[in-house]
Amino acid sequence: MLERYGHGGDLVTASDLFGITADEFVDFSSNMNPFGPPEVVLHVLETKWRELDRYPDPAVRGLRSKLAQRHGIKPDHILCGNGAAELIDLAIRALRPNQGVGLAVPCFGEYADAAHKYGGSVVKVPMFEEDSFRLSAERVLEAASGYDRPGIWMLGSPNNPTGVTVDRDLVLQLLDTGAFVVIDEAFLDFVPNEEAITLIQEATRRPNLLVIRSMTKFYAIPGVRLGYAVGSEETIAQMRGQQTPWSVSSLAQWIGEAVLDEEAYAHRTQRWLAEERAWLTNALGALGCKVFDSITNYLLIKLPDESAIEAAQLQQLMGQRGVLIRDASHFEGLNGRFIRVAVKLRELNERLIQALSECLQQR
Amino acid sequence: MLERYGHGGDLVTASDLFGITADEFVDFSSNMNPFGPPEVVLHVLETKWRELDRYPDPAVRGLRSKLAQRHGIKPDHILCGNGAAELIDLAIRALRPNQGVGLAVPCFGEYADAAHKYGGSVVKVPMFEEDSFRLSAERVLEAASGYDRPGIWMLGSPNNPTGVTVDRDLVLQLLDTGAFVVIDEAFLDFVPNEEAITLIQEATRRPNLLVIRSMTKFYAIPGVRLGYAVGSEETIAQMRGQQTPWSVSSLAQWIGEAVLDEEAYAHRTQRWLAEERAWLTNALGALGCKVFDSITNYLLIKLPDESAIEAAQLQQLMGQRGVLIRDASHFEGLNGRFIRVAVKLRELNERLIQALSECLQQR
Repeated sequence: MLERYGHGGDLVTASDLFGITADEFVDFSSNMNPFGPPEVVLHVLETKWRELDRYPDPAVRGLRSKLAQRHGIKPDHILCGNGAAELIDLAIRALRPNQGVGLAVPCFGEYADAAHKYGGSVVKVPMFEEDSFRLSAERVLEAASGYDRPGIWMLGSPNNPTGVTVDRDLVLQLLDTGAFVVIDEAFLDFVPNEEAITLIQEATRRPNLLVIRSMTKFYAIPGVRLGYAVGSEETIAQMRGQQTPWSVSSLAQWIGEAVLDEEAYAHRTQRWLAEERAWLTNALGALGCKVFDSITNYLLIKLPDESAIEAAQLQQLMGQRGVLIRDASHFEGLNGRFIRVAVKLRELNERLIQALSECLQQR
Repeated sequence: MLERYGHGGDLVTASDLFGITADEFVDFSSNMNPFGPPEVVLHVLETKWRELDRYPDPAVRGLRSKLAQRHGIKPDHILCGNGAAELIDLAIRALRPNQGVGLAVPCFGEYADAAHKYGGSVVKVPMFEEDSFRLSAERVLEAASGYDRPGIWMLGSPNNPTGVTVDRDLVLQLLDTGAFVVIDEAFLDFVPNEEAITLIQEATRRPNLLVIRSMTKFYAIPGVRLGYAVGSEETIAQMRGQQTPWSVSSLAQWIGEAVLDEEAYAHRTQRWLAEERAWLTNALGALGCKVFDSITNYLLIKLPDESAIEAAQLQQLMGQRGVLIRDASHFEGLNGRFIRVAVKLRELNERLIQALSECLQQR
């Protein structure tokens, strides 16, 4: 299976499996901005590479100050990390919940992995297809008041793989129970009105709220590893105390600062996504797939009822055609009827639809 | 003080302190190869930057296989990390010693920091000026058999700041006590006959030995963050289980693979170091400084007895002249009589000697 190393976007494994070189794949399993890394990344590397002979700024002052300005908050509320994955780890390590970690499933597998890594248990609240995978306030608040209530909740917003945000009021209610809430907003910058949705401002004012952001999906630079967390000064200081020194490389700091100025790239991305998500949703519907509403750049799909093919087998067939998709049955709470694909540029989306159409007919 | 963020090489802090821009400093506090990053670094970045839109290989297969070949071992004995600092952290987290961490002081401050981060205690064996800071077998073996003997020993070889290696037989005796031994060889690649000294081969055969290497000092790329650990397959698997996913960026993997082929750079470095360390040692001696024998690219120095100046004050005076040195009194077991400097190219070494000569006379 393609998820051997825990991630659909692992092209080396895919290449081993399907005997196709990494360059020939179209990777719909990895939710990256299809415009690729902005040109300024090359410019920054060419200009600054000689300065690699210095240690990175251990306090990441330049980038944190730029992020602070962007969100209208103070730099002391921000911690940068070696990818959002490090910040998920640090949140759990720094907060060390006695009572376990609360998740709404299906969700990103890293949350449970991070909890288990530090010996924590996991409490799961299910989300259902019938509810379009919206998190039920009733169910969460019940779990949050029970005997084995979690000490930390980790919730994706928009959630991966469903593309659905967590209701703001629900988060506030959850905070009122005294639980610590971590909101993973890794894919929120794809949403045009993100200011209306993000809980970043709230996180600076609440002692028990942390927001985690990625900088690598929107700017198509996951190879760089860069994310940041926003929380109370106390939480941020606790997490920093657990962080490996010089965890954010100079390369990541330089690139992070540079891409934040790429406004034209940002606007182009949001225009493309609005148009193309609608197109792809339509085309998938025409193949008989059920597509769940997503506010971001990936779609959760239920395979047509009339097709007997399972996600694992479909992934195999599509892989042989050079198209990688995510077998969503690896997400707890989903079964072999579900796949996840990223939204890409039109020509590639057409290639996805073409291959999918062939594979679904084949069975 | 310059060590506010825990590292002498922090140019942003230095720049704040002395009102000199980061570029104008000559940084003798940071032990980097003065030839700077090899040109191949730029070449690799220019060629591959567009592939930053893919996740790094989570298993770091290319680089690990190249390192395995270099050392004549199997890739399963190698774990790459986000700098040697991450591997120090991981060693302690994965091995979780009940009985604390054993150190030979003076040594790199990260060892104790990592131990404390995970709630571990520290047992210290002192090394003395009278012994030229060689580790005494008698003292270590006594500590290793005592009631509160450490579960893990972390020893630098060559040790920072002293430049002295740990005796191979002493390590083997320590292993025989059943203790786990971590040897930090971050500066060993500066030593021409490193094959005769490294414990890498031994580490693949012993269940209780781990060697940590840095790739960024020798190739002057600390801004990249890259190191590796060599140990038994079991130890490596345990550490990998604690590591943040995708911890080694694509940039670090590409650059790491590329620099390993830079043989001309390596030879030039070793020729330069043999000559220039001797020159600098001599010149420092002529100023009345006592220079301790070092097999690597930095020198521990005791200030002249006839001078009343302390390291902290000297650092200040040198800083105002644009020359950064390490105030070695921050290393436990050393006092204000000690500084540490890197060996650099002749012209800069002359600038160090000139500034030092002025500052020592001033008092």
